[in-house]
Amino acid sequence: MRGAVLHAPGDVRVEQRDTPTIIDQTDAVIRLSATCVCGSDLWDYRGVNPVTQPTPMGHEYVGIVEQVGAEVSTIRPGHFVIGSFFASDNTCPICRAGYQSSCLHRQPIAAGGAQAELLRVPLADGTLVATPDIPSDELIPSLLAASDVLGTGWFGAVAAQAAPGKTVAVVGDGAVGLLAVLAAKQLGAVRIIAMSRHADRQKLALEFGATDIVTERGDAGVAKIKEVTDGLGAHSVIEAVGTQESMMQAIRSTRPGGHVGYVGVAHGVNLPGQELFYSHVHLHGGPAPVRRFLPELIDLIWHRTIDPGKVFDLTLPLDQAAEGYRAMDQRRAIKALLQP
Amino acid sequence: MRGAVLHAPGDVRVEQRDTPTIIDQTDAVIRLSATCVCGSDLWDYRGVNPVTQPTPMGHEYVGIVEQVGAEVSTIRPGHFVIGSFFASDNTCPICRAGYQSSCLHRQPIAAGGAQAELLRVPLADGTLVATPDIPSDELIPSLLAASDVLGTGWFGAVAAQAAPGKTVAVVGDGAVGLLAVLAAKQLGAVRIIAMSRHADRQKLALEFGATDIVTERGDAGVAKIKEVTDGLGAHSVIEAVGTQESMMQAIRSTRPGGHVGYVGVAHGVNLPGQELFYSHVHLHGGPAPVRRFLPELIDLIWHRTIDPGKVFDLTLPLDQAAEGYRAMDQRRAIKALLQP
Repeated sequence: MRGAVLHAPGDVRVEQRDTPTIIDQTDAVIRLSATCVCGSDLWDYRGVNPVTQPTPMGHEYVGIVEQVGAEVSTIRPGHFVIGSFFASDNTCPICRAGYQSSCLHRQPIAAGGAQAELLRVPLADGTLVATPDIPSDELIPSLLAASDVLGTGWFGAVAAQAAPGKTVAVVGDGAVGLLAVLAAKQLGAVRIIAMSRHADRQKLALEFGATDIVTERGDAGVAKIKEVTDGLGAHSVIEAVGTQESMMQAIRSTRPGGHVGYVGVAHGVNLPGQELFYSHVHLHGGPAPVRRFLPELIDLIWHRTIDPGKVFDLTLPLDQAAEGYRAMDQRRAIKALLQP
Repeated sequence: MRGAVLHAPGDVRVEQRDTPTIIDQTDAVIRLSATCVCGSDLWDYRGVNPVTQPTPMGHEYVGIVEQVGAEVSTIRPGHFVIGSFFASDNTCPICRAGYQSSCLHRQPIAAGGAQAELLRVPLADGTLVATPDIPSDELIPSLLAASDVLGTGWFGAVAAQAAPGKTVAVVGDGAVGLLAVLAAKQLGAVRIIAMSRHADRQKLALEFGATDIVTERGDAGVAKIKEVTDGLGAHSVIEAVGTQESMMQAIRSTRPGGHVGYVGVAHGVNLPGQELFYSHVHLHGGPAPVRRFLPELIDLIWHRTIDPGKVFDLTLPLDQAAEGYRAMDQRRAIKALLQP
């Protein structure tokens, strides 16, 4: 089968790879209907994470089950399914507490490389959620978004305790940040401030429910958030970048007693303990337990309540994956959907 | 009047100071029934915080109101009152959200120096809580504990979301850590692990409700907590020290999705962003909003439900404050009560 492989920073190739098969009897193999490039793939593509060997890429996927192992009981061939970037058993105490991305038996989907025609998914019963029926084509981008970027933005909003009556600020205008805006809206936030300086992203933020746009960054961004919140800071701030600057911007934009939900994968971040202590914020985040939210997100998409698929502003055949990476790296695209 | 003044590291003297008076019409002046030495006073006493000038010491107090300003309406002369280390108006949006120690108009009590005969308390109506009546002498240590050390341990337990069914671990066996054990017990925790290697403190932890004692520290302490929690870590961990080692011990002892409540004043702490991200813990803490809890804590003490005053294992006349500092510095005493 064909799949995307990163050979070196900036060098993504779609090439023949071994066809995945059932290895453990709890596996499924699915034929992908769609996959995509993640902002976190760019950490590798840009060489921020070292690339030591040819690496299959991708961890976002929707598709139709082709084959299941003997111990898979709820997922069946022919099901249209969505899973997340960590396979999880969904039965261990950590999963039952809603933290499936820290499942005691978790396995990274990225190891298989989801930017491909076929994907092996371990722990299929725990990991995959089937849709009520085979979806129409126009639902596929939104269902694909649920696999990571919507689920991650949603977790950010939940971790930041976005809720009715609250003012929410979102640091980061990538697909996750934009979908955090959508999540905050769904969770009832009364005011949603998107921090963005790109016209196309501002537009999408407003479509998703943002009430304010702040273009300033860093200290100026913090000052602006304070200015529009009576000097207090936002109740809830979602951090969707993962840098030192964005984390400090999020913490400093939050009022004492408020909540920071951080979902940008931390790179080179060190939090000063004393400032954090006196900030009085709640801090929660990490790799989103997307599996917790999948049934609810699928339901919202299935009933056309939300349309997160709008973040895909570029659709390419899988063979042109390299162009998808380039377009996102150069910020010509918010997020690239790949059709195997 | 007489009051304790720190002249240099290790050099505390009780000397004549100006008698406090009403400055703002929202002030009260109280005659202290008791005061004490705080673990955080030792940061100054040990020279960890630089001492640049003779500094009045102390921020914990109970006593009888002598005088109030013209704008004080609920607190009256003759009331027996308790306040906390920050004066707060208790009406601003931050106070109303329960974060009185970040009140928009907060003023540090320490500036006045509570290890003295008399103390000026700003924002008296917002800061002070009167007891139902003049307490009997035997209640005074517990009421004094509510002024900081109980309120701080309580906030740590609340921030760590100690609750029925949960396993709580406490890092730090000073007075705050010991009273965090008491708080976790009151909040219904089913299992409370005190981390302590001092026999007298272990004994008090058990009296306050600890079910387990762990003597290991650092990585060995983390391994022990994991061992006694099926490899998962505690649901809730209270950090009551404030060093890099104790913070990392707390974070690493917490299961994914669990809660760290940190109340040790952070000194030289830097939290590695990536480890925090993948830890999946909730982090909350800071200077305890003791005022939020005072009515409830006074009620529990008044009805003899809790006896937090047991942390005072040394009682001295105010004039011997220096010996109180020495005894705590040398760990001969958990906490020293001073009688003006």
